[in-house]
Amino acid sequence: MGSIQRVQDDARARWTAACGPWTARVAEHVDQVLSGDALMPEIARYQLASGGKRLRALIPVLLAERLAGEGESALPLGVALELLHNGTLVHDDLQDGDTVRRGLPSVWTAWDPAQAINSGSWLFFRALKLAHEHPKAAVIVPYILDAMIAIVSGQAQEFQLQQPVDASDHIPASLANWHAMADGKTAALFGVAARCGALVANADHDDAASFGRNLGLMFQIQDDLLDLVGNKGRNARATDLCEGKISYPVAWALSEAPAGPDVETIRRVVTTPRAETTDDQVSEGLAALEATGAIAETARAVAEYGRTLSSHPLCDKLPGLVAAVLAPVRHVLP
Amino acid sequence: MGSIQRVQDDARARWTAACGPWTARVAEHVDQVLSGDALMPEIARYQLASGGKRLRALIPVLLAERLAGEGESALPLGVALELLHNGTLVHDDLQDGDTVRRGLPSVWTAWDPAQAINSGSWLFFRALKLAHEHPKAAVIVPYILDAMIAIVSGQAQEFQLQQPVDASDHIPASLANWHAMADGKTAALFGVAARCGALVANADHDDAASFGRNLGLMFQIQDDLLDLVGNKGRNARATDLCEGKISYPVAWALSEAPAGPDVETIRRVVTTPRAETTDDQVSEGLAALEATGAIAETARAVAEYGRTLSSHPLCDKLPGLVAAVLAPVRHVLP
Repeated sequence: MGSIQRVQDDARARWTAACGPWTARVAEHVDQVLSGDALMPEIARYQLASGGKRLRALIPVLLAERLAGEGESALPLGVALELLHNGTLVHDDLQDGDTVRRGLPSVWTAWDPAQAINSGSWLFFRALKLAHEHPKAAVIVPYILDAMIAIVSGQAQEFQLQQPVDASDHIPASLANWHAMADGKTAALFGVAARCGALVANADHDDAASFGRNLGLMFQIQDDLLDLVGNKGRNARATDLCEGKISYPVAWALSEAPAGPDVETIRRVVTTPRAETTDDQVSEGLAALEATGAIAETARAVAEYGRTLSSHPLCDKLPGLVAAVLAPVRHVLP
Repeated sequence: MGSIQRVQDDARARWTAACGPWTARVAEHVDQVLSGDALMPEIARYQLASGGKRLRALIPVLLAERLAGEGESALPLGVALELLHNGTLVHDDLQDGDTVRRGLPSVWTAWDPAQAINSGSWLFFRALKLAHEHPKAAVIVPYILDAMIAIVSGQAQEFQLQQPVDASDHIPASLANWHAMADGKTAALFGVAARCGALVANADHDDAASFGRNLGLMFQIQDDLLDLVGNKGRNARATDLCEGKISYPVAWALSEAPAGPDVETIRRVVTTPRAETTDDQVSEGLAALEATGAIAETARAVAEYGRTLSSHPLCDKLPGLVAAVLAPVRHVLP
């Protein structure tokens, strides 16, 4: 594990160095936008203080800076995207019943569900107001709104994938449906983050958006894999599996693996209500995912995204990012 | 009651006649924007089909039409505001635990809380995308975003007003705090509705916004009064009182009425959890509100807003609207 830890640390150090002063500039700008005594900015500050890598802010800033020396102009857009992302997290934690985020009580637990709904929405509107102040708002904001429509639709699809087969809004677990869901839920915001950077720099923003979307998909598959092979900081193993989420490996196993007892075990774990899922069931589910080859297939997919992204010209503008995203699952990649 | 019914019907008939073909145009435009097979537009159509007077759509359209013959240009903005309003209603019903809206299961009951959160947010972003397509979006959308920030902040304040006095985010029940809350929760969207109409018509939009805000405040006080003296269609009496809402009459009684057993009765009813509030308690609360003069004071306030609005030049552009809003409480007005 020593050398894997070193590889992870190296990747993160490269990315941190690449971000340079921008990490602090993002933090300052976030503080400035979220100032105020009222409850809504107070909850927003609490949510933002829970941490996070600020990727949705740093990607546009670094791209704009390295493409055209326009990092400062991209900063408010990056912060707007980060606030939008955090708005979705506040709502997510409530929707998923997650009581803890990065070691602290989630907003709906620290306050209550009603204020969590309000503060997620407040973050949305405050962020859009900020984006609107940008000189290129007329071009950029519609892309941001498209991304937000896609995110919410993706979140809706995520729950539909978990619905019983006889529910009218059930969506079957397939890789295609997983991709449609993740393309909305996760990739859309990475796509518009990269687009914002390129737009501010007057570069090809459709190409940047495509790069960002693939980065988002890699990020999501990595996150799904990490849930099975790592610890995401919720002091829990295989949280997604317990919640019955149709993650990439689960979607692969249920739609691509040969029918048999392993697939049935996986289906049983994801359809058992969270509160009734035992540790033994989780262990059986993990073993079944391993046995069907779903974990290896997921590792293969994330590595392939990594290779594709690394060959894109924009990758050099974000040094260490792909490696840093892959670092937590590096030990299981082919 | 026969003559009161006639007065109500007359006011509504005048307003309906004033709306002319625009009511149908709003419905058509809503259907067009909410087309699609996915779950989010499906839920949005369900929510919009629950009814409503479409005031947030009709006000900008009628103002633009009567000020400058620009009704058609204001139509997408009006529809956007109506969708935003309905997004807040979807979230509201979940926040308040209201299982029924206008005789039908509310969205969170018909689907589930997670999809209610998603569909409210989807309505927000879809509406803003629509507003963004307007030629004057660069000027108008920031006002809409300000209104949405105010609405969410007002909703937050509404819950804060209900918090126990020892809670850190408690706001004391006072008329000033009620006004700050209602100015956000309800008046902001009426304000921006009137502003949109005037902006499209190149008229004085600050004046229009002020008119709209007062209309919104009258609307909210009327709604608070109606909860006590009418039937809002939820097959329940004094729903707000049961929920412990700090409505205008309650805020007045708790802050302006002389201390005594009536005020204590009101305080007890609004601090008792909804599930534990008995019919007898509701009757006692209503009697105490009557005895303190809070109901008469509320009727006086709503009538005063009505008079102020009626003397504003824009009132003539919305014939019958003020009377139609007041119609359901007409029988108790001074």
